[in-house]
Amino acid sequence: MSISHIEHIGIAVKNLQDAIPFYEEVLGLKCYNIEEVKDQKVKTAFFMVGQTKIELLESTDPEGPIGKFIEKKGEGIHHIAFAVTDIENQLQRMEGKGVTLIDKTPRKGAEGLDIAFLHPKSTLGVLTELCENKNK
Amino acid sequence: MSISHIEHIGIAVKNLQDAIPFYEEVLGLKCYNIEEVKDQKVKTAFFMVGQTKIELLESTDPEGPIGKFIEKKGEGIHHIAFAVTDIENQLQRMEGKGVTLIDKTPRKGAEGLDIAFLHPKSTLGVLTELCENKNK
Repeated sequence: MSISHIEHIGIAVKNLQDAIPFYEEVLGLKCYNIEEVKDQKVKTAFFMVGQTKIELLESTDPEGPIGKFIEKKGEGIHHIAFAVTDIENQLQRMEGKGVTLIDKTPRKGAEGLDIAFLHPKSTLGVLTELCENKNK
Repeated sequence: MSISHIEHIGIAVKNLQDAIPFYEEVLGLKCYNIEEVKDQKVKTAFFMVGQTKIELLESTDPEGPIGKFIEKKGEGIHHIAFAVTDIENQLQRMEGKGVTLIDKTPRKGAEGLDIAFLHPKSTLGVLTELCENKNK
């Protein structure tokens, strides 16, 4: 396995308009990008913290995954994403070890990365994403 | 403000005995330390992922913070810890910006770090820890 670092931490927020000033003024981080990911029904705001991004996620649809998460659990940490190489082989290897894949094959996520989610029921309660940057 | 990186991500697990093999065999990370933090009523296992540690937290007491968290929410991501400098001043500055401090002054955490927690009600639902390594 070859996880190089934590690519990002996804945090569900009710709205970016309130959340961005908190991250900028209280934590002193700088929002460098805002992007809509229509497929995931979210608008995301990105902050760099060392090697890792914080990705704030605002739902654009109450029926989307973040809308449902906030309804059930409130605002908070939603997932961890690990940066990997050879994502297709990693998914296959993990499935062989009993991990339930939400995405059997990678799809395009924010910032053009190839991404795939692992089901939290097979990862000790942590919604886990694998990311590969094939644009490098 | 001067957050240099994400020092660690704290993940609540029912027991380290089941969780460590998952992180080692499935994710391919290496557990490099296990430590009991009596003050927090936890036993922790550490894994390095780039700049950031994953800190698995097993409760040693059902009445401790991790015991209660698992009872209420199940296993999963518990908190994010940011590496800062001058932690005392940061706490004071944040309190001035309306953040509710769980720890008004730093105390000793795992691995000898000076740590303090911010209340999730004032940090958009994210239990947030500040850490400073004064042993460097």
